[in-house]
Amino acid sequence: MRAITQEKIDNLTEFMEKNSIDVILIADWENARDVNMRFLSGHPMDATLVLTAGGEVCLVPWDKQLAEDHAQVDVTLDFTQYANRQAGGAIEYIKDATKKDNPIIGVNNNIPYRFILNIKERLPNATIFSNPKEIADKFSTLRATKSPQELDKLTEAAKIGNKTIADIKKFAEEKQGTESDLSFIVMKKMREYGAEDNAFPSLIANTNRSHMIHCHPSAGNNRYAEQGLALIDFGALFEGYCCDITVPITFGKLTPEQEKIRDTTLKAYEAAIESIDLGVPFWKISKAANDVIETAGYVMPHGLGHGLGLAVHDSPGVRQKPTDSIALKGWTERVVEDGMVFTIEPGVYIKGLGGQRLENDVMIRNGKVVVYTKSELVEVE
Amino acid sequence: MRAITQEKIDNLTEFMEKNSIDVILIADWENARDVNMRFLSGHPMDATLVLTAGGEVCLVPWDKQLAEDHAQVDVTLDFTQYANRQAGGAIEYIKDATKKDNPIIGVNNNIPYRFILNIKERLPNATIFSNPKEIADKFSTLRATKSPQELDKLTEAAKIGNKTIADIKKFAEEKQGTESDLSFIVMKKMREYGAEDNAFPSLIANTNRSHMIHCHPSAGNNRYAEQGLALIDFGALFEGYCCDITVPITFGKLTPEQEKIRDTTLKAYEAAIESIDLGVPFWKISKAANDVIETAGYVMPHGLGHGLGLAVHDSPGVRQKPTDSIALKGWTERVVEDGMVFTIEPGVYIKGLGGQRLENDVMIRNGKVVVYTKSELVEVE
Repeated sequence: MRAITQEKIDNLTEFMEKNSIDVILIADWENARDVNMRFLSGHPMDATLVLTAGGEVCLVPWDKQLAEDHAQVDVTLDFTQYANRQAGGAIEYIKDATKKDNPIIGVNNNIPYRFILNIKERLPNATIFSNPKEIADKFSTLRATKSPQELDKLTEAAKIGNKTIADIKKFAEEKQGTESDLSFIVMKKMREYGAEDNAFPSLIANTNRSHMIHCHPSAGNNRYAEQGLALIDFGALFEGYCCDITVPITFGKLTPEQEKIRDTTLKAYEAAIESIDLGVPFWKISKAANDVIETAGYVMPHGLGHGLGLAVHDSPGVRQKPTDSIALKGWTERVVEDGMVFTIEPGVYIKGLGGQRLENDVMIRNGKVVVYTKSELVEVE
Repeated sequence: MRAITQEKIDNLTEFMEKNSIDVILIADWENARDVNMRFLSGHPMDATLVLTAGGEVCLVPWDKQLAEDHAQVDVTLDFTQYANRQAGGAIEYIKDATKKDNPIIGVNNNIPYRFILNIKERLPNATIFSNPKEIADKFSTLRATKSPQELDKLTEAAKIGNKTIADIKKFAEEKQGTESDLSFIVMKKMREYGAEDNAFPSLIANTNRSHMIHCHPSAGNNRYAEQGLALIDFGALFEGYCCDITVPITFGKLTPEQEKIRDTTLKAYEAAIESIDLGVPFWKISKAANDVIETAGYVMPHGLGHGLGLAVHDSPGVRQKPTDSIALKGWTERVVEDGMVFTIEPGVYIKGLGGQRLENDVMIRNGKVVVYTKSELVEVE
């Protein structure tokens, strides 16, 4: 099943008509992912997709048997039958469907440059629509508000995550295992509770690694019980939809500097949650947390949060307003709307002292703001 | 530690000088991965990198503390200090380092289009080098032959994979578990044997799913013992380097059509391995397997193999020669050389009957062809 609704397809094709765009080309391949392919087709990965101004969707999947099970599209082309497989079939389809040798082709700004070069070579009279950022923004806007079916799946993913928090707490309190042990327990429990997979590899950092925003490797052989600041960032995948949760954990008595990192994180989180309401611009929510962190003398090295959906980093972004003129030109203010789902995850990270991050997921449903995951600080003596 | 050697850097800067390229810009970000960033810097992920014609490397990492631990570069810029963080810092550095407002900037053809648009906006007099494919090919060539240190790490990754094959065989013979159970066992065993992680999520397909090239989801709740054709495609990650192994497994008595799928796969594998030797073009190795598969009346829907290194899909590709004129124009014949490491993995997939794939890793070291992983057909009664 594809996630896009007919109403959203109509919105897209109206946008295309208004801008004289004949087709939109979307590519999702290894090392170059674009969740809009799945959003438009239901096909999970590895395909090129073309949407015509008439609303017809053509898919060129790497695995046509996977497409038979998942894709909900009008035309499926056989990848193996085209020269330059990732681009070739799609470009042939564009010629056929538009009956033009000079179509206007829309792409979003994340498409690999080779697709642009390929179009120029194989369809030299085609024009690339001049504002790919506008197309990216259009898709982001459409993906940012979820349908009731999508909200249900996100809720199921969160239920799995919430159950797993209790297992994490128990593991931490027993003080017997390593980061790596915890990564197994989390994955095993989430599968037991109904997840199809991790939404991403759990990031598990003991005090000597928690200063990294995303620790590398994701889990190691450190004992998960040493004095200081630890965290685990994990998520469940349920029918393609994600939850994303970070539990901050402290072991033993903290130093005053470590206490300040912990307290600043918690205060920034509270300030952000307090500021969420329908119609509030996301940059203001971000500012609420950042003000707390900056007042304490720290800098948060990442955005405050991000949308959740088919991608673990979906729209809307919960970020600061850009400060330079070029970036501001391409920036659109977004506000909290019904149907949106996003994370709030402030963090403070200092090498030598460690880091803390508290992350929960927020859903706006029927006009209500609900923090629907249940992470909180875990303190172990 | 970065993987590139001084000799390879000299090769790159000579190429840049010859083509009047002032800098090469490489971007590795979520949804848009480029292993050349890690190859040139040692930094594992999430950064933009600039290489100057003088051989200086500048990194703009998302996580500067991760860079402190891993990157081996000349300049590190603070991501948070630049407007348009992913591109902004790199473009400022290009201005400073070249002292030109009209530099020639090389990119490879997989870079997200937004970087091109950003350069045009922020450095309007800059020129993008006209042949990004040539830059991609240059990097592929440099990555395709490994240094002795890289070969040692690849060997260690394979040792872990080889030990795990015995656990997989035991699990299959016991006929007690599900695909999902096997995925845990594989990950747990690989960690015990010294892996830092899976190289990728293990793809585990029972007979009703093995017709998919890469099954989705990667492991399910099917009992891993039903009559027919099963497989597991897995790999270990050791200090950033991968192995990649597929074990074909049959359960019970096969139908004649299933036997033909199994036998064709094994014959294609043997034909490919037989054909490998120093100086042989990769398309000929691919042809050896494809001829067997096509003679049997099947089509292999994917390439025969791929290089292994810092990326699980590295160069060289082991693929057919393109047949159309445009693709042929951009194609370069590559031959087997000392220091290369690649997979051989023929497969046949028929919905309703299942699929088989046999995959091992081949290393060319000191002039010798060594199949250094040890997968073979597992038959369970």
